[in-house]
Amino acid sequence: MILALAGGVGGARLASGLALALAPGELAVAVNVGDDFEHLGLSISPDLDTVMYTLAGMQNPETGWGRAGETWHFMETLARLGGDIWFRLGDRDLAVHVERTRRLRDGDVLSAITASFCARLGIAHAVLPVTDAPLRTRVNTDAGELAFQEYFVRRRCEPAVSGFRFDGADTAGPSAPLAQLLEPGAIEGLVICPSNPWLSIAPMLAVARLRAFLESKQAPVVAVSPIVAGSAVKGPAAKIMRELGIETSALGVVRHYGALVDGWVIDKLDAALEPAIVSGGCAVALTDTIMSSPDKSRRVAGEAISLMRRIAGTR
Amino acid sequence: MILALAGGVGGARLASGLALALAPGELAVAVNVGDDFEHLGLSISPDLDTVMYTLAGMQNPETGWGRAGETWHFMETLARLGGDIWFRLGDRDLAVHVERTRRLRDGDVLSAITASFCARLGIAHAVLPVTDAPLRTRVNTDAGELAFQEYFVRRRCEPAVSGFRFDGADTAGPSAPLAQLLEPGAIEGLVICPSNPWLSIAPMLAVARLRAFLESKQAPVVAVSPIVAGSAVKGPAAKIMRELGIETSALGVVRHYGALVDGWVIDKLDAALEPAIVSGGCAVALTDTIMSSPDKSRRVAGEAISLMRRIAGTR
Repeated sequence: MILALAGGVGGARLASGLALALAPGELAVAVNVGDDFEHLGLSISPDLDTVMYTLAGMQNPETGWGRAGETWHFMETLARLGGDIWFRLGDRDLAVHVERTRRLRDGDVLSAITASFCARLGIAHAVLPVTDAPLRTRVNTDAGELAFQEYFVRRRCEPAVSGFRFDGADTAGPSAPLAQLLEPGAIEGLVICPSNPWLSIAPMLAVARLRAFLESKQAPVVAVSPIVAGSAVKGPAAKIMRELGIETSALGVVRHYGALVDGWVIDKLDAALEPAIVSGGCAVALTDTIMSSPDKSRRVAGEAISLMRRIAGTR
Repeated sequence: MILALAGGVGGARLASGLALALAPGELAVAVNVGDDFEHLGLSISPDLDTVMYTLAGMQNPETGWGRAGETWHFMETLARLGGDIWFRLGDRDLAVHVERTRRLRDGDVLSAITASFCARLGIAHAVLPVTDAPLRTRVNTDAGELAFQEYFVRRRCEPAVSGFRFDGADTAGPSAPLAQLLEPGAIEGLVICPSNPWLSIAPMLAVARLRAFLESKQAPVVAVSPIVAGSAVKGPAAKIMRELGIETSALGVVRHYGALVDGWVIDKLDAALEPAIVSGGCAVALTDTIMSSPDKSRRVAGEAISLMRRIAGTR
């Protein structure tokens, strides 16, 4: 069993590649919930939904969120009624939020609801929230501390970032299915997807038992760089790195993760960085990391798995 | 100012006729909330919405509920996720429920939310819930006591009815805009729409101050019979009358309301009943009461207003 840590689009794409490369019993995808929020009275889990829709083949490739072939009649009517429309919810997508909210109110936990939805949508691999506890990313910016979606969607990542806080992380334990995978010997290795290290992966690693698992070096950890040739493939990672005073390169990301990661999959365009990464103690695999098709996602996933097994073989 | 009491489809049709016949400042429509319920975590007010959609010209004439030209992508997805689909919510309709629920949670009252929605949808006449307090119709049947929508939608009115209970009616005051209209001299008269007397009008009259207003005879009260030639125009009224042992005719309805009503608009098909109604002390107007077009609704409304003014002139 391989455990992947994933956030939004980049994470979902590698997760779908891993799902093509590995049998259902061989892969679990733990997903960030720091982006989750309550909006219009609904419990919304953007990263879980992006991973779920992508694994079900329902994702909207243009937006990077929501479903393909979506309609917007709910939203149009909400606008007419004077409701809040800065966070867009499609008619089909809405069913996930309404049903999730209802089940949470009825006492179900997020991991059980997610498993049920995934089964209903025909997803064979395990998808699990990193925690069932409330964990909310808050962004320190030059416009003050903002709730994640205020920063990310409403203000389109425009405020300059100076740091993050993960509300609830102190007491958040791993979700029950994740806790099982953190038992000794349960997983062969761990893949950190090319999700935003600060916005998507950091909230997950703020769950103490998951972070301790990585630090314990019980299983090899490989990561795929979300920065290629000095730019983020998608999203605000490079902008955030500049604002935090971090070098906007794969090397900046490698240094950010430090000793938590044993092996790096970086893009061929960044081949010149390989010696510095190797001298820092990590194994490296070079490949084309842009996952613009399922085939390419599968190939990147294969490189990550091979690198992980290579590292395991040298231990 | 004329005050109309309305429930579902028949009430909405007469209300729209009254709205064609009277200027915005001359009509207020008080609406039943006994059908309201919480479903999928949403606060749903079926009668308020039927009146609102009808006055806005958005109603679905085939179903008698919901909007014309509706789409069902939310519901299709909810079914796929294993959610509850016995109460159908269209994609556009859903915006009303989500936004209403949000505002109620934020502390707004139903009458203020209704006024805001109606203004947004271009409705010039006042539409108001009979009460802002929770008032819920419960139906005693041969299948036990059922919540209203359990009886009405889920079980399609199949269980035999033996009585009703209006939960919350003991303490429910009229909504603030209705309370204003019940002040002495505020209204010229009152029209009871051809809504189901037991399911739609009785819960409204269970609000003590409204019932006391009718009993005080401060203003003439006219009603339009929902029973024509021994049948209900729509819905289960005739079935319920049979189950309660009441004669299924306009006369049965006249006797049910008793001294609360001063004048009756009945269908020409029921002309033979006129002497019995008149001998009971009520004025009568005979007309074609089937409101199959806006013109016909306007004409029935005109008959009700004329009858009301005729009664006022004889006092």
